[in-house]
Amino acid sequence: MSMSDSWEDKVAAVRHHRDASLQKVSPPLALDALPSPLPLNSQGIPKLLLTPREIEITENYTVKQLLAKLRSRQISVEEVTRAFLRRAAVAQASVNCLTELLWDFAIERARYLDSLPEPQGALFGLPISTKEQHGMRGENVTTNASYVAWIDRKPGSNQIYDILWDAGCVFYARTTQPQTVMHLETNSNIYGRTLNPYNRDLTPGGSSGGESALIGIRGSILGVGGDIGGSIRLPAAHCGIYGFKPTCKRISAGVPGRESILSSYGPMTTDRDAMELFMQTLLAAKPWLVEPSLTFKQWIPYQFDRPLKIAVQWWDGVVKPHPPIIRALTEVAAACKAAGMEVVDWDCDGLQHDKAWEIISSLYWPDGGAEAMGRITGAGEPVLPLTKFIIEEQPSVKRLSIEELWERTEQRDAYRAFYARAWTATGQDGREVDVILGPASFGAATPHDQSRYWGYTSQWNLLDYPGAVFPVTTVDPAQDAKDETYVPKNEQDKFCYELYTPERYKDAPVSLQIIGRRNHDEKVLAALVEIEKALGRP
Amino acid sequence: MSMSDSWEDKVAAVRHHRDASLQKVSPPLALDALPSPLPLNSQGIPKLLLTPREIEITENYTVKQLLAKLRSRQISVEEVTRAFLRRAAVAQASVNCLTELLWDFAIERARYLDSLPEPQGALFGLPISTKEQHGMRGENVTTNASYVAWIDRKPGSNQIYDILWDAGCVFYARTTQPQTVMHLETNSNIYGRTLNPYNRDLTPGGSSGGESALIGIRGSILGVGGDIGGSIRLPAAHCGIYGFKPTCKRISAGVPGRESILSSYGPMTTDRDAMELFMQTLLAAKPWLVEPSLTFKQWIPYQFDRPLKIAVQWWDGVVKPHPPIIRALTEVAAACKAAGMEVVDWDCDGLQHDKAWEIISSLYWPDGGAEAMGRITGAGEPVLPLTKFIIEEQPSVKRLSIEELWERTEQRDAYRAFYARAWTATGQDGREVDVILGPASFGAATPHDQSRYWGYTSQWNLLDYPGAVFPVTTVDPAQDAKDETYVPKNEQDKFCYELYTPERYKDAPVSLQIIGRRNHDEKVLAALVEIEKALGRP
Repeated sequence: MSMSDSWEDKVAAVRHHRDASLQKVSPPLALDALPSPLPLNSQGIPKLLLTPREIEITENYTVKQLLAKLRSRQISVEEVTRAFLRRAAVAQASVNCLTELLWDFAIERARYLDSLPEPQGALFGLPISTKEQHGMRGENVTTNASYVAWIDRKPGSNQIYDILWDAGCVFYARTTQPQTVMHLETNSNIYGRTLNPYNRDLTPGGSSGGESALIGIRGSILGVGGDIGGSIRLPAAHCGIYGFKPTCKRISAGVPGRESILSSYGPMTTDRDAMELFMQTLLAAKPWLVEPSLTFKQWIPYQFDRPLKIAVQWWDGVVKPHPPIIRALTEVAAACKAAGMEVVDWDCDGLQHDKAWEIISSLYWPDGGAEAMGRITGAGEPVLPLTKFIIEEQPSVKRLSIEELWERTEQRDAYRAFYARAWTATGQDGREVDVILGPASFGAATPHDQSRYWGYTSQWNLLDYPGAVFPVTTVDPAQDAKDETYVPKNEQDKFCYELYTPERYKDAPVSLQIIGRRNHDEKVLAALVEIEKALGRP
Repeated sequence: MSMSDSWEDKVAAVRHHRDASLQKVSPPLALDALPSPLPLNSQGIPKLLLTPREIEITENYTVKQLLAKLRSRQISVEEVTRAFLRRAAVAQASVNCLTELLWDFAIERARYLDSLPEPQGALFGLPISTKEQHGMRGENVTTNASYVAWIDRKPGSNQIYDILWDAGCVFYARTTQPQTVMHLETNSNIYGRTLNPYNRDLTPGGSSGGESALIGIRGSILGVGGDIGGSIRLPAAHCGIYGFKPTCKRISAGVPGRESILSSYGPMTTDRDAMELFMQTLLAAKPWLVEPSLTFKQWIPYQFDRPLKIAVQWWDGVVKPHPPIIRALTEVAAACKAAGMEVVDWDCDGLQHDKAWEIISSLYWPDGGAEAMGRITGAGEPVLPLTKFIIEEQPSVKRLSIEELWERTEQRDAYRAFYARAWTATGQDGREVDVILGPASFGAATPHDQSRYWGYTSQWNLLDYPGAVFPVTTVDPAQDAKDETYVPKNEQDKFCYELYTPERYKDAPVSLQIIGRRNHDEKVLAALVEIEKALGRP
């Protein structure tokens, strides 16, 4: 790649690399047999292209079940790997979620694992999909994070991926992210737009939207995302899968040198228990010895010794959730009550979630976005609408002096203390709220380029609270009629309100979020178990 | 105080307030009976001014022993409080360590505690001295942090002092700190210079030098300091007392909005066990619920299940310690070996402690020191030599742009990871080093205005490692002759080398420091117990 190539030339080379990686699929997929145009909902496509055995391997097992089969050698790592490689290729053909399929690399790894006299590692033989932004082991692995300027960049691996590798996993597919990795959708000049596997007219969310789309069609059952404003939880919610954003610094993440707002890596997966397995595996490796800023604390599963006290966040005081979200909250709250839990309201009036957005959006870009915008425009690639939204259209975003950064940071910490007091105040009756149950977004997966309200996820990034997302239902026009009488409270509320008609959101998954106090990660996942039990999911 | 008053007028008013607070002492101290000039070593002065009973109360008990007597009501809180109030006044007359004596406030508190039907709180009745910088409860309490510009400032209390208060302590004396609170000595235009209670020609250290001087003459047996570059450990070392700097964010501290380099509050005390009591008391209050950035972790005392592996830091590769420090290291290392511990060297060659100083000194002042210098010069007060040293004379200190701050922060984190790897590498034989035993300073307490090398403490602030300081011996001209053949390795080494003659350091305490990995606070204090046992201090 020469310096004088146009950005389009560079992108063409990357796409060629991606497409060539998909040409490796063997036996090749019978893509010509697919209907044209593709159906709105991609969930039926795998069955058209994969063998019954591949369908069985990729659909019939939870992560733990598959691991048990791999560990007992009832099934070879290579057979599992090939099944997921082929299904990932199906996902790519359906929703454009891959940056690269690692055919040879994965099969070589699988054969190595199969050759071991004894299975080794907590993730022995498990195919894990990875976000392109995160880099990876391998001499020739490039990591562009969807910046044209970085097309040839080779930053190398990271601690989390190394621990997963040492635990015996197979990396086999790398997934898309949006320009700047700071959209709640997944669209870039390099890889194009990733689509929702339940409805092509909707986004799979972002920034880990390649993961959510891939996992949402079971081209993967465990992947790694990153979350600084919702980038694990929102795409997981939009694709009907599970996602967990740990408290920052439980496990490694983040851009070196930035600490005003930290990001978290975390699991995205088809099943609940895999999230805890992911965290346990990473923390068993004592990552704080290598990256000393990490919290010095093993993962010790939490056990409730009495029924939960849950606070339901019906809305955040800024944007009213769409009818399907309200219905999901109502249903889950009722199930929790029926199971004997105490259910109260999380009243956001007075909690200033709008102010939280002002603080966090400013701290995302203390340089006013100069670095990111310079990287984009310097490479000649177009600035996408959601990049403009998150940098240029936020009044809070501007270059800060050191003193202004201090002031913003002080506001951040004061807001965190303020919110902590509100949480503690729920214990005045002797029983503090265990977790908040709330939306993961104002609605189900949005139509493309319309993800312009981050509040239901970014709020918890500002507070650094752990959050888990889980699927509840799907949009149902019969039950989820638009409230035609509602009068929006502000411009953002109006924008989101006007987006909604049940027909537009056809088949879209509806998910909710469970939030705990900072560093109460184990408690959040334990609460999810209790809440899902109340929903009849043991 | 009017805006038009000169800085000298403002200072005169503060000194008047201090002096008036000392006039409250009852019965008054017979200060006229003191020799003039005062002896170089102040340790004999209390016996000239206090009653035998006051001497008994202030000298004969450890913190835990005194607490036991208070809790069992063998002695009243008021009697203990009066004894320490009067001894603190003696300390003030001897070494100028107080900003204020809280006579009425403390006696009122003591009487309240005596009036309780049952003793309450882990620190019931214990007089605790406090650093003026930290503020305190009370409507009329001002907190100037030794800035003339802040003479009328009332920032209020802080979480740690509130927890100590709730645990039943008595606040009775507030102590001095230097201009900017960023000298390793204690001199300001407001309060003048605080002296070492073992030798008036030497510094008690700083910035918590009012505390170390007061506790060094047993005008207090437990006080609170703060440490961002050595400000607990170095003054504790210079005054022959114990001091502990926890890992940051175990307990509350710091200047709001600043996070590049954090500070720690911590205990300074006459005895070892009080440090753990202090930490346990604070963490039992679950401070993370109020200040959510704090680490979510109780204090769980560490138990060694085998003999320690200790690495001795003979020097830091930059400045060679003075002979008494080397002797102390030699003696303690020999005692540890004799007790069955494994003793290895902590070789700093290649560990770039000079680079660590470059990073941390820059991150102390990302605004180039503009805020602090503006506060000083704006009030018209003179800039003291050690203020010039730490801001103007450090080539690394300059105003940073956001991008430069990111770069420095990245260097900080890379250095931390680099150092962690070095520590982990000590475990290649299957047994990682438990703690580092090293100097707390290049020498004993320095002559005034000469504390111009921070490396033996600031190194561990940069790394955010916990550190405890303990007394070992005193400078002994017979054993600690200057090495006349030594050839300094660099300018800093030369400066420190030339400072030393055994005569200059007459009677000065010699202390050492124990360092643990980040967040291994409990282990550091447990190691101190083992090491002191090896020294015959059970």
